[in-house]
Amino acid sequence: MRLAGLIQERISDTLARHREELTALGPDALPLLDEALGFLTGGKRFRAQFAVLGFRAARELDTAGDVTGELSRVLDAACALEFFHAAALIHDDVIDRSDTRRGRPSVHRLFGAMHRQHGWRGSADHFGLAGAILLGDLLQSWADELMQAACDATPDRDAARRAREHFNRMRSEVAVGQYLDVLEEQQPEFAGHAEQLERSTRVLVFKSAKYSVEAPILIGAALAGASAELESALADFGLPVGVAFQLRDDQLGVFGDEELTGKPIGDDLIEGKRTVLVALARENLPVTQRRIFDDLLGTELDAEQVAILQRTIRESGAVERVEEMISRNIERATDALTGAPIRGDAAAQLTELAERAARRTH
Amino acid sequence: MRLAGLIQERISDTLARHREELTALGPDALPLLDEALGFLTGGKRFRAQFAVLGFRAARELDTAGDVTGELSRVLDAACALEFFHAAALIHDDVIDRSDTRRGRPSVHRLFGAMHRQHGWRGSADHFGLAGAILLGDLLQSWADELMQAACDATPDRDAARRAREHFNRMRSEVAVGQYLDVLEEQQPEFAGHAEQLERSTRVLVFKSAKYSVEAPILIGAALAGASAELESALADFGLPVGVAFQLRDDQLGVFGDEELTGKPIGDDLIEGKRTVLVALARENLPVTQRRIFDDLLGTELDAEQVAILQRTIRESGAVERVEEMISRNIERATDALTGAPIRGDAAAQLTELAERAARRTH
Repeated sequence: MRLAGLIQERISDTLARHREELTALGPDALPLLDEALGFLTGGKRFRAQFAVLGFRAARELDTAGDVTGELSRVLDAACALEFFHAAALIHDDVIDRSDTRRGRPSVHRLFGAMHRQHGWRGSADHFGLAGAILLGDLLQSWADELMQAACDATPDRDAARRAREHFNRMRSEVAVGQYLDVLEEQQPEFAGHAEQLERSTRVLVFKSAKYSVEAPILIGAALAGASAELESALADFGLPVGVAFQLRDDQLGVFGDEELTGKPIGDDLIEGKRTVLVALARENLPVTQRRIFDDLLGTELDAEQVAILQRTIRESGAVERVEEMISRNIERATDALTGAPIRGDAAAQLTELAERAARRTH
Repeated sequence: MRLAGLIQERISDTLARHREELTALGPDALPLLDEALGFLTGGKRFRAQFAVLGFRAARELDTAGDVTGELSRVLDAACALEFFHAAALIHDDVIDRSDTRRGRPSVHRLFGAMHRQHGWRGSADHFGLAGAILLGDLLQSWADELMQAACDATPDRDAARRAREHFNRMRSEVAVGQYLDVLEEQQPEFAGHAEQLERSTRVLVFKSAKYSVEAPILIGAALAGASAELESALADFGLPVGVAFQLRDDQLGVFGDEELTGKPIGDDLIEGKRTVLVALARENLPVTQRRIFDDLLGTELDAEQVAILQRTIRESGAVERVEEMISRNIERATDALTGAPIRGDAAAQLTELAERAARRTH
């Protein structure tokens, strides 16, 4: 797809410009830029694509021809989302102690390896942590610059202002959502079923559903000058798609194929993530089995223990329930577009991308 | 001073607004906001003050009367600097493993203590790390929102654009400068004197001098629509003041009074910071003494060892040399304002604030 190429090109150009600007700081700074490029190459680009389609929902946009000023600012906004996401993932991997990301070592691991390779003094792990924190900070700033560029180039000042508002709200919500997610893992006990499901759903909505789908669409739509009515329909579409996206993520975190996800099998089980899937599985377990489940979750599981937890979740019926929830959310999303003042080709593309987000295998 | 009160008020109002916006995320999110307010209460506010004086250098600004639209946007820009600085310090304290900040536990320590207090499961230290990373990320976003607000409210679009450019460059340079600072501490050996001095100076310039003084002044000046000539004079003023500011910081990091700095005595010696002060001290040491110095620096020093290193630095003559450098930089800064197209009262206030930055005891 040409769009993916345009986005990668814009990312590379942006990093090349920053490399240029930072030459006064000398060659020692270059590993930061190299790791940034490595991290920002590849990925599924769902957020960038949803932003482009959000724009298209309100206004025609040709991505096949020359890069016009209009396409250029949509690309800046789309890349802003990819930079911000990279920053968030780099910090997430530190917080979640994840050693791999997309089949490569995570950024703190890469900086740690650099330390070991050079035989530097002090702790390689701590240097890895420092490198990851600072690279995340840099990418967050650069995301913001891209968003500024997109907004500054938008002639409709009110459209630009609304796009910034969506972007700002998204940033706050995802950081706080991530905090709530971490907090959940620290609790000695699960809450009662209803409360736990509410807590797990809140994390799912703010840490992922709004962030991964709803906000990108709204940012794109706002930049295109979408009406309040269209924005509202797109929010009604984006939120359930985001929920389906994250429910799929929860499934992949437990049952995903390591070769495809690029993450160790049973990752979420070892981390002890209290996902909606896990909350639903626990509801149906007999007391003794639930106690064993709770004792294992969030510990250093071996392959056999991972398999036991997987089987328990599967036999609880939670997998089917989550699949139903995914289908229901996608239906609800599709319905939200019916009768909305949305451009026809964009509606079809949004539905298609929603299906891909919900049915993905990695 | 009324300005300090206005800045604190704007900070509190901003955090109250975010608290309001985040109510949908529930009460568990509130500790983030509480820690933010705790961290952002107090501090020396040099950056905010330099930004206000940068504005005043180009344009009259009454801070004693009502808060006009103009004063309001200068306050937003000044607070953006304070929020950004808080974010940077919170991440710095994680990176530098600092347990205290301004006489209080550092943010990662506060989140760690919260974990212990509740008897949560898992590692309290790791939870502290997660809380500090995420609060830093949040404050960085909120800094950016304040800067947006300041720029959006500035009628002169070119002025707003230049202010953003200064802000953007500052953010990149401080993150990369901080990375270079960390990198320096990992090196098994000091470089030869000339090279080490160059490396230490580069860190001093980018991590602190530009960030703490030059950039804030230029942001304020740009917002006021300063001419290129005035901006250039203010940069010639701001950089040496920033150098003096950081040279003083280096001195306080070795000789500062714990009661005043709010940091453990000899903090920089234990961390192994390769400051200009340390580079100058080493130059004059006989080989054997230098070897002992190098072996001690950056290790878990007891009070007696700290005292030995302090005496060594003092006897090397480095303290006088740094004092001379501070005085010379302040002179150079003052000279830069002579003949510049700067408003008279602002020139006097800038010189006074520069003196305070260079002569401070904490």
